[in-house]
Amino acid sequence: MIVNVLAETTGEEIEHIVGIKESELRAHAKGNASRTSIGIVGGERAAQPCTLVSRECKAERTVVEVGDVRIGAEEIVVIAGPCSVESRAQLLTTAHAVKRAGATMLRGGAYKPRTSPYDFQGLGLEALRLLAEAHAETGLPVVTEVLDTEDVDTVAEYADMLQVGARNMQNFALLRRLARTPRPVLLKRGPSATIKEWLLAAEYLLAGGNAQVVLCERGIKSFETEMRNTLDLAAVARVRELSHLPVIVDPSHATGRRSLVPAAAKAALGVGADGLIIEVHPDPDNALSDGPQSLDLAGFARMMQSLHEPLRRIARAADAPARIEDLACLTEYGSMCDLP
Amino acid sequence: MIVNVLAETTGEEIEHIVGIKESELRAHAKGNASRTSIGIVGGERAAQPCTLVSRECKAERTVVEVGDVRIGAEEIVVIAGPCSVESRAQLLTTAHAVKRAGATMLRGGAYKPRTSPYDFQGLGLEALRLLAEAHAETGLPVVTEVLDTEDVDTVAEYADMLQVGARNMQNFALLRRLARTPRPVLLKRGPSATIKEWLLAAEYLLAGGNAQVVLCERGIKSFETEMRNTLDLAAVARVRELSHLPVIVDPSHATGRRSLVPAAAKAALGVGADGLIIEVHPDPDNALSDGPQSLDLAGFARMMQSLHEPLRRIARAADAPARIEDLACLTEYGSMCDLP
Amino acid sequence: MIVNVLAETTGEEIEHIVGIKESELRAHAKGNASRTSIGIVGGERAAQPCTLVSRECKAERTVVEVGDVRIGAEEIVVIAGPCSVESRAQLLTTAHAVKRAGATMLRGGAYKPRTSPYDFQGLGLEALRLLAEAHAETGLPVVTEVLDTEDVDTVAEYADMLQVGARNMQNFALLRRLARTPRPVLLKRGPSATIKEWLLAAEYLLAGGNAQVVLCERGIKSFETEMRNTLDLAAVARVRELSHLPVIVDPSHATGRRSLVPAAAKAALGVGADGLIIEVHPDPDNALSDGPQSLDLAGFARMMQSLHEPLRRIARAADAPARIEDLACLTEYGSMCDLP
Amino acid sequence: MIVNVLAETTGEEIEHIVGIKESELRAHAKGNASRTSIGIVGGERAAQPCTLVSRECKAERTVVEVGDVRIGAEEIVVIAGPCSVESRAQLLTTAHAVKRAGATMLRGGAYKPRTSPYDFQGLGLEALRLLAEAHAETGLPVVTEVLDTEDVDTVAEYADMLQVGARNMQNFALLRRLARTPRPVLLKRGPSATIKEWLLAAEYLLAGGNAQVVLCERGIKSFETEMRNTLDLAAVARVRELSHLPVIVDPSHATGRRSLVPAAAKAALGVGADGLIIEVHPDPDNALSDGPQSLDLAGFARMMQSLHEPLRRIARAADAPARIEDLACLTEYGSMCDLP
Repeated sequence: MIVNVLAETTGEEIEHIVGIKESELRAHAKGNASRTSIGIVGGERAAQPCTLVSRECKAERTVVEVGDVRIGAEEIVVIAGPCSVESRAQLLTTAHAVKRAGATMLRGGAYKPRTSPYDFQGLGLEALRLLAEAHAETGLPVVTEVLDTEDVDTVAEYADMLQVGARNMQNFALLRRLARTPRPVLLKRGPSATIKEWLLAAEYLLAGGNAQVVLCERGIKSFETEMRNTLDLAAVARVRELSHLPVIVDPSHATGRRSLVPAAAKAALGVGADGLIIEVHPDPDNALSDGPQSLDLAGFARMMQSLHEPLRRIARAADAPARIEDLACLTEYGSMCDLP
Repeated sequence: MIVNVLAETTGEEIEHIVGIKESELRAHAKGNASRTSIGIVGGERAAQPCTLVSRECKAERTVVEVGDVRIGAEEIVVIAGPCSVESRAQLLTTAHAVKRAGATMLRGGAYKPRTSPYDFQGLGLEALRLLAEAHAETGLPVVTEVLDTEDVDTVAEYADMLQVGARNMQNFALLRRLARTPRPVLLKRGPSATIKEWLLAAEYLLAGGNAQVVLCERGIKSFETEMRNTLDLAAVARVRELSHLPVIVDPSHATGRRSLVPAAAKAALGVGADGLIIEVHPDPDNALSDGPQSLDLAGFARMMQSLHEPLRRIARAADAPARIEDLACLTEYGSMCDLP
Repeated sequence: MIVNVLAETTGEEIEHIVGIKESELRAHAKGNASRTSIGIVGGERAAQPCTLVSRECKAERTVVEVGDVRIGAEEIVVIAGPCSVESRAQLLTTAHAVKRAGATMLRGGAYKPRTSPYDFQGLGLEALRLLAEAHAETGLPVVTEVLDTEDVDTVAEYADMLQVGARNMQNFALLRRLARTPRPVLLKRGPSATIKEWLLAAEYLLAGGNAQVVLCERGIKSFETEMRNTLDLAAVARVRELSHLPVIVDPSHATGRRSLVPAAAKAALGVGADGLIIEVHPDPDNALSDGPQSLDLAGFARMMQSLHEPLRRIARAADAPARIEDLACLTEYGSMCDLP
Repeated sequence: MIVNVLAETTGEEIEHIVGIKESELRAHAKGNASRTSIGIVGGERAAQPCTLVSRECKAERTVVEVGDVRIGAEEIVVIAGPCSVESRAQLLTTAHAVKRAGATMLRGGAYKPRTSPYDFQGLGLEALRLLAEAHAETGLPVVTEVLDTEDVDTVAEYADMLQVGARNMQNFALLRRLARTPRPVLLKRGPSATIKEWLLAAEYLLAGGNAQVVLCERGIKSFETEMRNTLDLAAVARVRELSHLPVIVDPSHATGRRSLVPAAAKAALGVGADGLIIEVHPDPDNALSDGPQSLDLAGFARMMQSLHEPLRRIARAADAPARIEDLACLTEYGSMCDLP
């Protein structure tokens, strides 16, 4: 049994909760600012930590609502748009086109994490304003990346969902800050993050009070250089076994090659992903970032057509909204759950 | 332009073929036993090697025939059976069950490559005889692994298709020997083989005269340890762009977890694989090898049911049999083709 | 030729600098907040970016001064101390012991990046105060990690050198903020960062105005799980070829095993590292973090003894202080350098 | 406790050896051709296999004798020579030069494993004869790779030590065949082999009767492409903890860059390697294989000079010859040892 209690809980209260004396079992407490985790090891019980993201804690699958879009529910969600917001015309053209083709959310980078300081770093606030305008025109909820704790409030003002980029997956300062926004969070898997590290990054968000978390597999680093990253689709199936959180797939960053995106997208739906996030640009060859992996408008429409069948999905039972208070292992003292 | 000529071709003949003088272009010849490759670099041409496995050499997709099963054609092929042949009862029970569930070929290990010398090493010849018996009873063509050049003839006598295991993908002595059998070859990708290395391993077979080659993606090594390997499905789509050879997927070895096999199989079909190879055992918990990743008989039947739709596939145009003489880049002097 | 110019430079000025017309050469400008990079491709010149961290830009090796310690100069630097600051006694005991054994700088975590939110997260400000006290008592300059842009000023007040942890190597918001502190920065290599990505992360610091950067190799992720990470010592030699910045090695995080630290440290000196950073704890078995890889006080003293010979190093010529204005490729317009 | 017994041992004898009844403990036997391994799990004992390569089985370090060269003893061994034997002049020139510079063994490829079938595949038997001639002229014992079980006897006739190349590390047919030669074996680590897999490959040799095994770390595959492979020097230290077998390092294949070889070699000695294997060619720019990583004759001599100090090593106690019968865990029934 693992019990996670709030920091202010006293040792006496803890003894009351778990109903056991220290003489019988060894209880080890490690404190942090907001929560204390107590591993109680005794008898036959395993030492594996029980977490808020786990299915032990919540058996029903979580549905995250972004505006009127429900991620993790019956419908497969398709998020599309340019890597970077480059101009008003580029964004609005793309937004209208992807909506027509069937996308239900819009993506677009305002603050861009770039390997080199000499690469285009994004239009910042101007891009946020354009995203809000595109939202107003098309009705598509908007997701965009936030890089800095200092930008969280500003980005949350303009965007419907905040993205943590792959390279920031273990930027714990940012995760702690995002745990306190009212916005849902899209948490990309780090390029070298194990499934366990990824889920524990999500745990920072839930433990801090934000249960509206969507995971995103976008490829990991391996020795293979033919594609930009190695798309780890089995991880999507495994994460769905381990966690109640929705998982979507980014075939654009995973493959880095436009020609592979439709096949990878179809595979993602086959493995059980709750949605896709796709880079689309009206003129990929002249994109300021990620051109080689961006579909053009016609290419995106064709892909959506080819995914017509897989995108229809049988209604799944037992979905549940993303409310912190619904987590079964959360008691008045913190979280608590038995492990098998 | 790259020209691969047979070893006996003289320098004069080469000059005749390519119709150019050395003063204009630099021609560099590297000889080996059976073939000479000449890279001619000049003007704007790329130095990328043209190979018999490439689509530059043969645009139509290859169909490999194993008995009456056609791999790479309209029908998706499902190969199923135990990791190791353990007994007559185990093999025949499995063979009948997988046939009933829809499999069209039988797998079963006779010679097992095992990490430890103290693990079960396979029944050898006895297993080959049981596989032949299972073939006779069910009509399912049989594929089994060969580990040693000295065993090639024996295995080819009993089995319909010979498998090169992942750890032997760059066992060039074995590849050269298999290039001279009349049997089709199933070439598994090495755990750390790049796509290029994999295709060049297949090139050993084609260059040696055996065009009946089926590739098999079975997961690669990465930092992630949650699954046994990292299933690289985007590689399947990429290989289909680069090569005319059929590609199948092994979700059992890739994931190492029975529970993930059906989802990974469905994803494999989504990405465009020509078939699946699945480990099935009547009693996985007591299997002598690979139990945790083997489906039981009922589990395999359920998976086949769930794959019913994806397994039907629209007839594809432009397929062609695996005949060495059909390779467009093969001339009387060797292979020849222009690169874009 | 690559020219990096400040953002305010006009197109006309750029034409003046490079002295060529657009009709002859293609000049492509990508702007960002503070600098514009212009790749001029023509004739035989390569398109490889010229960077401030490169030896093309500064042939002499850089020496970074932290208090009176000079990193990158004749003396090998040994930084030692606990993973986390846990208490006054723990820190001061360790600080005095490592100084006695020959360490010249003190390390100690105040803000800890932890995979799980339930693990010990560091004592924060209290730890910073203890580090300052240890510095006052022992004279050892102090390095500690900063996680959040909002903490940079506070940490810079107490510590002599600021560390960017491996998981934050591509936290570009943090890098941009640290480029504006007067403190030297220790930049750890990300667990899956290529050498090129690592150097470009350092470039964010130099391009932003902070030339006092020390690189630290601490192991990368691979399929091998026997050690915590895979120590990439050849990368140290390669980085020394490519860059003028000093490089040190962290054998504690790289191996994750106390018993391997001395051998790995000796190897690091063999490959040409400018220093070591070693985790030392008075009671490793009860450490709140990284116990298994921490040496105890006696173990550290023994290791220092065994390194006695390698730690003496022949004076190297051509070292130079870390002054932005000394970078040869930096002109009044920005940075400029020819590539071979 | 793990007991490995010969295959013919009966169940009754086994019960006699371990002196326990099945009612008390669970004994699970897995047979193979030559040996049976029995894991006896009970009480507090761990299930980790005890192997002949382990230090539990033999605490003293093994010394492997190749002619009059002793690998694993006081002297550091330096093996040097060309990647491929290309001609009599090339080999003899190199052999004399590396001997003069201090090398004590000669390397040279006769059968070359090449990624592409169109690359130079080695001179075969002719190369073996030249190696024997070089040995006769210089007295340097010779090591060369064997690719095929069918070539083992021929290669063993000409060479003093047989090499298993990295890509054949898990070619179990080859390992089993080499276990029956009287020659010592140099076993390279596979590009994606874990330490455990590497040691179990060596176990095939010892379990088959050949105790004269030297391990060779030559770099593993990772995401990093700046070097040809990622040299894993900490693995050398770890293998020396786990096994009594000597370990040498190949900095040429590991780095793939001539300029990095001397630094990597020095690091290898720092970490405790028993020797080095270095590619040397009189004219690297025109080498038929591995030119970029080959030192020229003068470069090798310079490197040997720079390694002068590290190459002298204090005599180590407790070395022991590589005799199968000295393995403490080997009883009349097979191998047996207790684990801690």
